[in-house]
Amino acid sequence: MSITIKDVARLSNVSVSTVSRVLNNNPSVSDEVRRRVSAVIKEHNFVPHEGRANLAKPKTNAIGLLMRGAGNAFFTGMVMSFEREAAARGYSLAVKQIGEREDEMICAPAFVKEKNLKGIILLGGKFDFSKAETERINAPFVCCTFTNSFGEIRESRYSSICADDIGIGFKAVNHLIDNGHRRIAALLRNTRDKSISELRYKGYEKALRERSIPIDDKLVMNCGDYSMKNAYETTLKLIDSGEKFTAVFTGSDIMAIGAIKALFDRGIAVPDDCSVIGVDGLESSLYCIPTLTTMVQPAEKMAVGAVDILDRLIKGECSYRHITAEVRLREGGSVKNIL
Amino acid sequence: MSITIKDVARLSNVSVSTVSRVLNNNPSVSDEVRRRVSAVIKEHNFVPHEGRANLAKPKTNAIGLLMRGAGNAFFTGMVMSFEREAAARGYSLAVKQIGEREDEMICAPAFVKEKNLKGIILLGGKFDFSKAETERINAPFVCCTFTNSFGEIRESRYSSICADDIGIGFKAVNHLIDNGHRRIAALLRNTRDKSISELRYKGYEKALRERSIPIDDKLVMNCGDYSMKNAYETTLKLIDSGEKFTAVFTGSDIMAIGAIKALFDRGIAVPDDCSVIGVDGLESSLYCIPTLTTMVQPAEKMAVGAVDILDRLIKGECSYRHITAEVRLREGGSVKNIL
Repeated sequence: MSITIKDVARLSNVSVSTVSRVLNNNPSVSDEVRRRVSAVIKEHNFVPHEGRANLAKPKTNAIGLLMRGAGNAFFTGMVMSFEREAAARGYSLAVKQIGEREDEMICAPAFVKEKNLKGIILLGGKFDFSKAETERINAPFVCCTFTNSFGEIRESRYSSICADDIGIGFKAVNHLIDNGHRRIAALLRNTRDKSISELRYKGYEKALRERSIPIDDKLVMNCGDYSMKNAYETTLKLIDSGEKFTAVFTGSDIMAIGAIKALFDRGIAVPDDCSVIGVDGLESSLYCIPTLTTMVQPAEKMAVGAVDILDRLIKGECSYRHITAEVRLREGGSVKNIL
Repeated sequence: MSITIKDVARLSNVSVSTVSRVLNNNPSVSDEVRRRVSAVIKEHNFVPHEGRANLAKPKTNAIGLLMRGAGNAFFTGMVMSFEREAAARGYSLAVKQIGEREDEMICAPAFVKEKNLKGIILLGGKFDFSKAETERINAPFVCCTFTNSFGEIRESRYSSICADDIGIGFKAVNHLIDNGHRRIAALLRNTRDKSISELRYKGYEKALRERSIPIDDKLVMNCGDYSMKNAYETTLKLIDSGEKFTAVFTGSDIMAIGAIKALFDRGIAVPDDCSVIGVDGLESSLYCIPTLTTMVQPAEKMAVGAVDILDRLIKGECSYRHITAEVRLREGGSVKNIL
């Protein structure tokens, strides 16, 4: 068993805060005390597990926002809402963006330690984390825009605010079916990635199944991410495959914009020749041509809700909380009734 | 003259670091010492000018990025480049977004103090700051995407990396003139705002003047910001004014997308009935319909360059530096030759 800072303090006959000051080379410690503490540290091979720098850090009032998926327009559009709500509750907000392929269960503990955070919001993330992983974070945390749909961790061990992602796919695809579409392509990040993409695909499957429409795997396209570029190229591939379809359900507005461009470049007019529906309700979905029909997620409400939950966790007012945000259909001009 | 922390230390017969610990309510200070120091502080009305919290903060290796104009897609797209380059040089990056109307010369000093930053990059900002204002920052700083074009501060007193914004407007409008356009509208944030918007307008004026085309103020539209929404509404106003024009020069790609939508909604096809040229080279400008012709700014190079300059300033390798980044025209499908 390894030695703790308390053991070092006891063995050196000083206080824990004095050990902390020695670790931080604080000049206020006398040479005699420094030598004594250093000797104990060396003798017992003490490693300050919480990080040397951390021990003497003043208490901050910072909370963290770990944003996954760098260029995600839905997330970057939420940052100001997080900042405003954090400030309104007396917190400063430290923001960190991580790449699509990085693991927030590795990054979050390091971020909490580095910035001495009181708590952290994970904006976007994977769905299969374990109890051990979440414990490494070592601070209250809230999953925002996702929940632990695929992991085995108990509901009482984490908090979340997210949309009903299966419902998003289900409602979007039902809207297309209601407008007479049967050959509906799905354009997603990945249908088996244990993320919102897989959930939205489940909604797509459910909608088709309930309306007794066969699922054609040749119409289900994995783009690998949420970028316009990959959505564009994947849609070109789908068109060039020769498969017939009259509508496309896309995993995000950004992907929908890429898909519309690909259809346009192949001479397929939206919505006259093909309908497209997105998810998110980004500002840019109002200004694309045609205006996008999309499932609007309440970005502002989710940001405010996440900060509210984190604030309650920090203050000990609750030990966990889960909120599902309402999503609504906003009709634009990208879906045509072909009945 | 006000009393300094050194005076407090001398009068209390303790070290400066002990005064600092008293100010930070550090429990390691004995009650007797605390009373003595507190008495001196009260007697002499000592105000810790550098901020109580700061005095005892450990040295960090953080640099700051103060981003102006919250939803600016050009800026948010640069954040990962700043992070990568900062990390490659051993810095952590603290990011703060401020609103369009906030003053970075007020926010930057507070941010430097709050996060104990080694230096700061101002991403976007006003152009008329004074020597006194910059001195308040109290750390090396680099202006990124702008320079002090309107202020009286000497070049040796600050650093910058930016595009040639007059040149951007000049080249963009020349491209329209080369394609036969004479009635060219300008859609800008503000033509007299002492920011890049005014510089780009100067480029517009210069291009028209050199080609002996009269400037028609009725074609010059101030949108107030760079949003799609205001660009859309301002373009509708311009169309509805009845003024004739065959092309629009917009201050950003986002504004161009708003303008194209407004033209589309009034039945004016781009580029057949009206040409549009943007500035930035955002990814989304490749996927709008038609693909936008735009002046591409080297976002990645500007981010890397800003971190490089700041790193040199911090290390004392230079005292100031100014770089002008190259901008290039990328032809899309939004400009028609009407000759």
